[in-house]
Amino acid sequence: MSIFSKYDGLARSLAAVTADGGRNPFAVVIDRPLSSTVGLIEGRETLLFGTNNYLGLSQSEAAIEAAIAAARTHGVGTTGSRIANGTQGLHRQLEERIATYFQRRHCMVFSTGYQANLGMISALAGKDDYLLLDADSHASIYDGSRLGHAQVIRFRHNDPEDLRKRLRRLDGTPGAKLIVVEGIYSMMGDVVPMAEFAAVKREAGAWLLADEAHSFGVMGTHGRGVAEADGVEGDVDFVVGTFSKSLGTVGGYCVSDHDGLDLIRLCSRPYMFTASLPPEIIAATMAALDEMGRRPELRHTLMDNARRLHAGLNAAGLRTGPQASPVVSVILDEVDQAVRFWNRLLDLGVYVNLSLPPATPDQHPLLRTSVMATHTPAQIDRAIEIFATVAREFGLMRPAAVTAS
Amino acid sequence: MSIFSKYDGLARSLAAVTADGGRNPFAVVIDRPLSSTVGLIEGRETLLFGTNNYLGLSQSEAAIEAAIAAARTHGVGTTGSRIANGTQGLHRQLEERIATYFQRRHCMVFSTGYQANLGMISALAGKDDYLLLDADSHASIYDGSRLGHAQVIRFRHNDPEDLRKRLRRLDGTPGAKLIVVEGIYSMMGDVVPMAEFAAVKREAGAWLLADEAHSFGVMGTHGRGVAEADGVEGDVDFVVGTFSKSLGTVGGYCVSDHDGLDLIRLCSRPYMFTASLPPEIIAATMAALDEMGRRPELRHTLMDNARRLHAGLNAAGLRTGPQASPVVSVILDEVDQAVRFWNRLLDLGVYVNLSLPPATPDQHPLLRTSVMATHTPAQIDRAIEIFATVAREFGLMRPAAVTAS
Repeated sequence: MSIFSKYDGLARSLAAVTADGGRNPFAVVIDRPLSSTVGLIEGRETLLFGTNNYLGLSQSEAAIEAAIAAARTHGVGTTGSRIANGTQGLHRQLEERIATYFQRRHCMVFSTGYQANLGMISALAGKDDYLLLDADSHASIYDGSRLGHAQVIRFRHNDPEDLRKRLRRLDGTPGAKLIVVEGIYSMMGDVVPMAEFAAVKREAGAWLLADEAHSFGVMGTHGRGVAEADGVEGDVDFVVGTFSKSLGTVGGYCVSDHDGLDLIRLCSRPYMFTASLPPEIIAATMAALDEMGRRPELRHTLMDNARRLHAGLNAAGLRTGPQASPVVSVILDEVDQAVRFWNRLLDLGVYVNLSLPPATPDQHPLLRTSVMATHTPAQIDRAIEIFATVAREFGLMRPAAVTAS
Repeated sequence: MSIFSKYDGLARSLAAVTADGGRNPFAVVIDRPLSSTVGLIEGRETLLFGTNNYLGLSQSEAAIEAAIAAARTHGVGTTGSRIANGTQGLHRQLEERIATYFQRRHCMVFSTGYQANLGMISALAGKDDYLLLDADSHASIYDGSRLGHAQVIRFRHNDPEDLRKRLRRLDGTPGAKLIVVEGIYSMMGDVVPMAEFAAVKREAGAWLLADEAHSFGVMGTHGRGVAEADGVEGDVDFVVGTFSKSLGTVGGYCVSDHDGLDLIRLCSRPYMFTASLPPEIIAATMAALDEMGRRPELRHTLMDNARRLHAGLNAAGLRTGPQASPVVSVILDEVDQAVRFWNRLLDLGVYVNLSLPPATPDQHPLLRTSVMATHTPAQIDRAIEIFATVAREFGLMRPAAVTAS
């Protein structure tokens, strides 16, 4: 029997998706980016509306120049783990800069955001501890819980009351209780009620880890995320995040005021047993962080753009989540329809992400779009127009929208 | 109770290591590299003998220029997963180049070498399968087995006969048997008897995955690793490796002739749920791969250097592993002595890795050294001289060596 035979079903699903000449939606190649908002796909200029490059900083001139300078002075890699030869002065500088940005005492930088969640969750929650995870948590959070040895308890998505009940059942048990939530959930763009979770955390004497991957640089007066926006940063023990969204590079971090964070460097396997980030990535990340701090208008434009896209897609008769956030998902009913819709969008020059069940909440297929601060109003209007065109082709106008128009 | 109290013992061990003004051996900062072989540590030029930068390519001019060009044309990151917006033309090119280098049909590139092992092992071996792991496997292999759902069976380090026995006990059980070995083991530098393992694999109808992280670019006529050196590449179903040793950048890969590899892209969580490598890293890796192929003399010099270091350390009366390989570990008896020895080496201008039990084979502390093709004979002789000086200070000359001198 082949070692691959367990994936026969997956192979058939993929064959169905790509039948009748449809593209493989998970094998799109961007020949190269022409700017933060336009990429060359299949030889054509295509509007990018599915990148999570919220501030457009992957194309920041300052970040590019910083990467170039570091490559010249430091080379292209460290070839070592952070606990061996992989900590250069630049890595320490970035940790200090991230800590300062968050007004926290400590910061650890990981080689990917995925490894940051893996490394923090598996090391913080030990075999006698409890991990309380939002049911819609990102794969890296679930994988971190699997790598660790704590007992895992799931609570209903964004439901502090459900968490409260589950914590009450643990009253009197020894062991730490670590709650894990995300700032903005990447599938639907919905925002965590952080202040309510903070209240539950305080009541229960639990610990709180917030993954602000999609909210860092996006929410809060200084871009520190939902905890800042909600005024409850003091209740969040650990903030985890990534450099590969708002900062446009790659890597992950955890910041905390707890002195114990430094010990995690010596027991977190996804931190210890991997090569550290190359110097040019570290330098680019610092430059992008500076730019993010220096240009708060990027966040304001981003949110204006989010509202414009959200309102426009709804006006076009499409169903989205209730909140305008930088991730706006169009909810469809059938996989086949979603696949064809996604293909038509790309035919007409708009790239978005296709997300299929079982990876989606409520088992609905999603056309996930994300906006950037660097999108022009004209680009957003053009994308909405193309969505509306395809919706009409598919007979997908909702009655309310048809009436309103 | 603090969530960190489980690490009180670790904190005490670290305090003991750093008592009397000793450095924290796991928090060394290389202010910056001055070349592949010399770094600035504590403000002083220090010989680097613990980097796994085997061919010195982290400082390759061609790789640096390629990174710079890609940063200018592509920016500093992709901000997306390989299955969403994170596959650029460069990623596909690198996959084709790696596949061609290994003369294999398929290649997947991962964001780190750690994630390559995690992603391949957890996806290949399912809940009805068996994973047969060398007892001294790297942490990323163990973590991959933990992330997956297969039954894990360990066999004695580098012992094909022990593996054969364990496989016989599985005769007649359904489910695939996936054997995982490494080319060169990074703690002691010992080489796998790949041809013998290949024979056991064939007998048992099992599958074989070889992690050639430390042997890629080092062993074999073309640098394809131990499988090439042993003439058994046809028996290795999956080769996993990293860009962060011989190629000097960061990232990981798997190559295979099995068409099923492409399906792994859609079910391997450490591949799917992480941002892809930035374009400048991809470009630098391709340039380093070219240079490795173009300059076979690098491998020959590396092995000459390995023999020089191995012979010199033994002549100085120190105990090492039996084989001369690019990793040469000096075996000591006591942790306290190893920590002081390591500190003295750094005082005198040589950086090596300190590895302490329980992370080491046989519970011996190790001073792990690694050579590069770019070390000069004079640098190697200087390092040996400093080792010998410290060994004399510590009264560590072995009788045989004392007699011989």
